[in-house]
Amino acid sequence: MRAICTLCGKIAYQNPKMVVGCLIDHDNKVLLCKRNIQPSHGLWTLPAGYLEIGESAVEGAIRETREEANADVEVISPFAQLDIPLIGQTYMIFLAKLKTPHFSPGPESSECQLFPVDEIPIDSLSFSSMVVTLSLYVEDVKAGKPKFHYGIINKSTRLV
Amino acid sequence: MRAICTLCGKIAYQNPKMVVGCLIDHDNKVLLCKRNIQPSHGLWTLPAGYLEIGESAVEGAIRETREEANADVEVISPFAQLDIPLIGQTYMIFLAKLKTPHFSPGPESSECQLFPVDEIPIDSLSFSSMVVTLSLYVEDVKAGKPKFHYGIINKSTRLV
Repeated sequence: MRAICTLCGKIAYQNPKMVVGCLIDHDNKVLLCKRNIQPSHGLWTLPAGYLEIGESAVEGAIRETREEANADVEVISPFAQLDIPLIGQTYMIFLAKLKTPHFSPGPESSECQLFPVDEIPIDSLSFSSMVVTLSLYVEDVKAGKPKFHYGIINKSTRLV
Repeated sequence: MRAICTLCGKIAYQNPKMVVGCLIDHDNKVLLCKRNIQPSHGLWTLPAGYLEIGESAVEGAIRETREEANADVEVISPFAQLDIPLIGQTYMIFLAKLKTPHFSPGPESSECQLFPVDEIPIDSLSFSSMVVTLSLYVEDVKAGKPKFHYGIINKSTRLV
């Protein structure tokens, strides 16, 4: 798609962006960060952010987790790819585990906390991608085993 | 990552691009297109191209298949995500099937052809992503069932 360059005002081609993050299970609890920035300030999210040039999706997910939760993780497997065509984003969330049991809020987070699977604050999550990802995870845990999911989120779809 | 805007010469943020495509199995044969454009003119590829703003990865893969092979397909499942950090690309290839047994080369292809799995021209494929994808597929078919794969391709890695 063609779009206007925000710097020069001329027409440039634009492509969807990848958002990469980690779903960290530690002792049957999931690590969430409370956002200290807009949008969705004060709501909970998995550590995630834009993939950068020069890194793989796994490397980006590990970097975002280090930045937002000061946590050092090992990625286990891909968990979810969620396309959001209406805003030109694709989320890629990986299952991961803490290498050491240490975490604390980075500059973009006000808190980091481990939530038992049945106490995940579904009504206080930051984005629809997080609602879908964590709902799928809760279902998978109840069914016995997480598996890879692909899905499309349309803005008009309210999932909670 | 920051990069220079090709239009205005100023600094702009750049993100990796997604390339989406279909691996179509029809009667135990895989549909390949011979590229009629550079790069890799004259070499074989799965129908694939850049994801555009406003479409899901599945929609993009279906559109590329229509453009390059005049084929109408139904996507079955995600097959492979392959990151190529050194060139800022991520391939997302979906397993798909022909809705009707019709295909013909689009403007970017000189030929379209169904290849039996054991006759795929591995030495005449256009990109390392295609070598990896089709090698994984051949392995999966021999093992009995295709499954989802995530991988990272480094330019320095020669896989054939």
